[in-house]
Amino acid sequence: MRIIGIDPGSLRTGFGIIETLPGGRLRHVEHGCLQLGRQPFLERLAQIHQRLRAIVQEFRPETAAIEAVFLARNADSALKLGQARGAALVALLDAALPVAEYSALQIKKATVGAGHADKTQVEHMVRRLLGIGEGIQADAADALACAICHAHCQGTQNFWAAREIGGQ
Amino acid sequence: MRIIGIDPGSLRTGFGIIETLPGGRLRHVEHGCLQLGRQPFLERLAQIHQRLRAIVQEFRPETAAIEAVFLARNADSALKLGQARGAALVALLDAALPVAEYSALQIKKATVGAGHADKTQVEHMVRRLLGIGEGIQADAADALACAICHAHCQGTQNFWAAREIGGQ
Repeated sequence: MRIIGIDPGSLRTGFGIIETLPGGRLRHVEHGCLQLGRQPFLERLAQIHQRLRAIVQEFRPETAAIEAVFLARNADSALKLGQARGAALVALLDAALPVAEYSALQIKKATVGAGHADKTQVEHMVRRLLGIGEGIQADAADALACAICHAHCQGTQNFWAAREIGGQ
Repeated sequence: MRIIGIDPGSLRTGFGIIETLPGGRLRHVEHGCLQLGRQPFLERLAQIHQRLRAIVQEFRPETAAIEAVFLARNADSALKLGQARGAALVALLDAALPVAEYSALQIKKATVGAGHADKTQVEHMVRRLLGIGEGIQADAADALACAICHAHCQGTQNFWAAREIGGQ
């Protein structure tokens, strides 16, 4: 099963692609971070959508995972983040990918084993679990962690963890 | 010039298409409202994107207009609205449409002539300006009002009114 994890944002959007292998092992396929900060906002939305669509077309993941946003900082940042998420999500949905959502707690538990890990610990464990030598940009590491979480939850049939995004 | 106005939302997304004619007259082309409330959230995002894309392909507008969101109610509703806006905007951007953003005040002034008009007055004036006999659903009326505002601002060369969406 090939999984894409995404960590959308209007300044940077991280993505990470992994594959589950027999015996529960994981293989790193690709990761990266779309740097969007220097462009006008609309251009960033277009870039998120077009570049993620191209990534999906190139790497052909079968399923997708994204981190839930439970508490945005404020209405203004929520609006910006929401637009970036919307642009990213329709790139996945257009390719008919099922999208699962996980809380930050679930993602940290799946990678580090503890819910209160910091970003450095997450990046460290992501690299270790996937056998990646060099350092990973933070948003790409978060995206890979999200994909790892999805792989674990599928492996243990914890489909309860995958819930609809955004609620009513 | 054919203009599409949109009023995106995660429960309902309104759209309205008009055409500017010689002498500053306007012609109504189409309007409608995508009712999204009964579907899961992700399905709504996919519907907004796919149906707006189909509308753009069918009616071939040359430019697009959207209302600015200055004050979202709270972070949660801003996140939902943002995702709907993102899904809608990339449908326009994918078709290489230039997108202009107008404040509610600008839109009301362009239709009713006063900045403090209520929804009923806006709908009334939209119908009158476009010669539409029957009542219009509120989100579709807002979308048409947005398109009318864009037509007026283009007509008077008020390009200052069209500004980048979302800021930095």
